[in-house]
Amino acid sequence: MSDNSANFTLAPVARLESDYPDKFGIPRQPGLASAARGRLVMLPPFDDPLALRGLEGFSHLWLTFIFHQSPDQTSERWSPLVRPPRLGGNAKIGVFASRSTHRPNRLGLSLVELVAVHTRPEVYLELRGHDLVNDTPVVDIKPYLPWADTRPDARTGFAPTAPACHPVEFSADAEAQLAKRRDRDSLRELIEQVLAQDPRPAYRKGQESRRYGVRLRDLDVRFQAIVDPRHGLVMRVFELVSLSRS
Amino acid sequence: MSDNSANFTLAPVARLESDYPDKFGIPRQPGLASAARGRLVMLPPFDDPLALRGLEGFSHLWLTFIFHQSPDQTSERWSPLVRPPRLGGNAKIGVFASRSTHRPNRLGLSLVELVAVHTRPEVYLELRGHDLVNDTPVVDIKPYLPWADTRPDARTGFAPTAPACHPVEFSADAEAQLAKRRDRDSLRELIEQVLAQDPRPAYRKGQESRRYGVRLRDLDVRFQAIVDPRHGLVMRVFELVSLSRS
Repeated sequence: MSDNSANFTLAPVARLESDYPDKFGIPRQPGLASAARGRLVMLPPFDDPLALRGLEGFSHLWLTFIFHQSPDQTSERWSPLVRPPRLGGNAKIGVFASRSTHRPNRLGLSLVELVAVHTRPEVYLELRGHDLVNDTPVVDIKPYLPWADTRPDARTGFAPTAPACHPVEFSADAEAQLAKRRDRDSLRELIEQVLAQDPRPAYRKGQESRRYGVRLRDLDVRFQAIVDPRHGLVMRVFELVSLSRS
Repeated sequence: MSDNSANFTLAPVARLESDYPDKFGIPRQPGLASAARGRLVMLPPFDDPLALRGLEGFSHLWLTFIFHQSPDQTSERWSPLVRPPRLGGNAKIGVFASRSTHRPNRLGLSLVELVAVHTRPEVYLELRGHDLVNDTPVVDIKPYLPWADTRPDARTGFAPTAPACHPVEFSADAEAQLAKRRDRDSLRELIEQVLAQDPRPAYRKGQESRRYGVRLRDLDVRFQAIVDPRHGLVMRVFELVSLSRS
């Protein structure tokens, strides 16, 4: 019984170097932006290559991590209700019926693609399709097992399908900037996948004249949501600004 | 950066009352014994019914929990290699390529079926198909989203399919004991699902004369593995012994 009233202490086992330098714009579930790359760098003493033996046989992993940029909700101050973006930011649901980042214990869970295991000189996992901000502390890594982890017919309450995707277009300026980059192909894919989710805050929707920036890799990607008579809402990239200059 | 070197403290949000009074015999992944029932009792201050609002719309949940019966592996003493039962207990693989209970941070992850949400007088979730020992502290509850959590074609290393199942039979004595129970149908299903996995320790396999007991609900279920000329290995229940008597 003593175990149940006691608290538990977690040590980070790894830290993510991510394509997402900050929170704004990160797709709200992993896999929505499969082009997102990451390096999951093992931290001492967990940077022993033996601890990863056999992992290369798996294509997907579960990461358990800490939403370290969310407030630490101790038992004295926590909110039982959250406003999921999917519901327009108005309706409130229970925090345990959501995957909100603002939750007791701040634990996150992501299914990510494992591209490669590197053990020298640095011990890290090369990942794709994650949804974690740069510097996220990871507290566990487990292999994904489809026969244990798949329930295709599950009922899904207020979140029955992936969010709708919007078309993304680039201005001539943005195209020219993209063409100069060595990572232009993967960067274009990443920008398209991230903006297709319409990352604007719910309370800003309807204010289509406003310009936004979403940070991806070393860039601030400036965009605007445009109402297009043929395609509905279109996300238009008008400029790529280097973060070192901004 | 300070967040990455720092440790994190978790408070249990709920505690599981389980059909499994102890570890021996628990199927090694959730869903292998769908008949396993559990009551996940919310702990103060997280026993606020508001925190569960909307959860009833989901049929499956992720539980993040602590393997509280496993040794606390602080960074000073942890083992990078484990011996998964699937590999016969001989081959060693990396702890992060396994779902072993003996792991840094002792975090477990289970996909369980939500049967009902109860809010009065006690706040608890009625679950099925879990793989957690009684009294397990749960540190997070999240809804299962098939569109985000399903990768049917994932590669799965050394664990490509669910473990093989063995036939289970009951002696006349065991049948008579079962017939007297109010929970006979769900209990029979649970016994069959648990024994079908052959829960004997890997190093005991081959010693078919030996008798074992697996604890389910308030019973010690005594069984033996028998080599049957037609069916191969058969699990035979010969007696159900009340735990209060044993």
